[in-house]
Amino acid sequence: MTVEMFLGIDGGGTNCRARLVDADGTVLGEGRAGPSNTTLGIDQAFGEILKAAYAACDQAGLDKSTFSHTHAGFGLAGLPDGRDRNRLLNYPHPFASLAVNTDAHTACLGAHGGRNGGIVIFGTGSCGYAILEGRGHNVGGWGFRLSDHASGAWVGKRAVQAALQSFDGILPPSTLAEDIMAEFANSAEQAVIWAETARPVDYGAIAPKVVSRAESGDALARNLMLQAAEEATHLIQAVAAKGVAQIACLGGFFKYLSPWLPDKINHLLVTAKGDPLDGAIRMARNAQAEGNTNV
Amino acid sequence: MTVEMFLGIDGGGTNCRARLVDADGTVLGEGRAGPSNTTLGIDQAFGEILKAAYAACDQAGLDKSTFSHTHAGFGLAGLPDGRDRNRLLNYPHPFASLAVNTDAHTACLGAHGGRNGGIVIFGTGSCGYAILEGRGHNVGGWGFRLSDHASGAWVGKRAVQAALQSFDGILPPSTLAEDIMAEFANSAEQAVIWAETARPVDYGAIAPKVVSRAESGDALARNLMLQAAEEATHLIQAVAAKGVAQIACLGGFFKYLSPWLPDKINHLLVTAKGDPLDGAIRMARNAQAEGNTNV
Repeated sequence: MTVEMFLGIDGGGTNCRARLVDADGTVLGEGRAGPSNTTLGIDQAFGEILKAAYAACDQAGLDKSTFSHTHAGFGLAGLPDGRDRNRLLNYPHPFASLAVNTDAHTACLGAHGGRNGGIVIFGTGSCGYAILEGRGHNVGGWGFRLSDHASGAWVGKRAVQAALQSFDGILPPSTLAEDIMAEFANSAEQAVIWAETARPVDYGAIAPKVVSRAESGDALARNLMLQAAEEATHLIQAVAAKGVAQIACLGGFFKYLSPWLPDKINHLLVTAKGDPLDGAIRMARNAQAEGNTNV
Repeated sequence: MTVEMFLGIDGGGTNCRARLVDADGTVLGEGRAGPSNTTLGIDQAFGEILKAAYAACDQAGLDKSTFSHTHAGFGLAGLPDGRDRNRLLNYPHPFASLAVNTDAHTACLGAHGGRNGGIVIFGTGSCGYAILEGRGHNVGGWGFRLSDHASGAWVGKRAVQAALQSFDGILPPSTLAEDIMAEFANSAEQAVIWAETARPVDYGAIAPKVVSRAESGDALARNLMLQAAEEATHLIQAVAAKGVAQIACLGGFFKYLSPWLPDKINHLLVTAKGDPLDGAIRMARNAQAEGNTNV
């Protein structure tokens, strides 16, 4: 008799993680590989996914032939439309079955153990997502240019803008503004040159400085954190308005943002039950239970 | 005896204008040519400047030999540092003398007839400038990425961002948001794709829609105009804080912004006495009076 196994993949722009579990959910092995954001191309994404999967298989002390009776679930960043999803599902793979969705979907499945619920991710970017009776609803998360409010990159960019305004006397003096302008050798021109190639992650790197200066009472920094908290509140309330009563906030920036959130949204916030890999495994399990070899 | 003449140039990113006057200030001719922003390269900028100058000379019915006793003043966009200024001054030119500065400097000279005073330009971008005892002081105007608050592009970008938030239920419904999302065929993905290549002028084109919806009472549009007015007030006050009592607001977006400004800054605002070409001519005249052949 063949023992069935389940593989979860959490593929993002920074790295790809894999977790292999048995039918009881016992973790057999985990693995990690490079970025598997689908915007990098399906070949690249699939290559890193398989690397991470093989690493998990190795750690479990199992042979690659295990995959012929392993049901896989991929939660992938950069999967905005059905086109990429179909190309992934039709890509030759070694698994018994394959289910694919966005990383937000698997994170939400993991956070609420498959029940109705919502998440808001506050990382370098931001994004809200709700699952209601199995259906996903997206809120925000349209990227740094137009969206990603209350994210680390959003706070960092507004801090650089405000630092320049303070430097020019448009806003009052501020220790945060002085810190930031010192990084640019107190030259607005240097800030402008830096901004020409700055990526969201570069702006995100400035956010901890804002948090720290806000904690020590700088008015500009406090104001930026209060604005971020207001935007975060709007995002959380918009996810709730999709019809979910419980929302888990995820992402590296949330721990900084959390103390600034208003009490009125406390009743909505819960701790995540599981991580995105748990969600990806749950998706694989559901697909297998429904008898879909490719979902 | 040689009759001295004066030529003013206002060179921007869209076009270059020239005005030729006699010693009494009587306008003899005007001309126009293509963009002469110095960031396009000195050769390109100088080529368009000479085209506009020759057109003014033609209109005056004068020969090009006139330039050997014409004192020229160039106010040029994209002239942020001394390097370009020196290269321009050392470029072979047909004039009796040449003075060069930024377009903000000549606009400020023109607006206040050479006296102490400030300007704030609210166009596609925004920029403040003050002249105090002949010395220029810059406020803001560091470009669309980090600065240009309260400009047409700034209002347009915030409107697109807010429209997406309204579309996602993060902000309340709004006729402005509906107008904007209709332009993107009610698709957030289309807005994201558009934003990948949108220039400041593309965002600026959305600003009149915000103005019109604000006038008809849409809460989101009103809020955006009030935020723009607050940022504009900060800019105007920061220019005043350089030590000037009178500020002229210029640029195509100012007429829309003006009704939203708070009364408390009314005492600072004056109408411009002359235009940037008047300022460029005044600069040429001062340079000649001071006996500097190249200033």
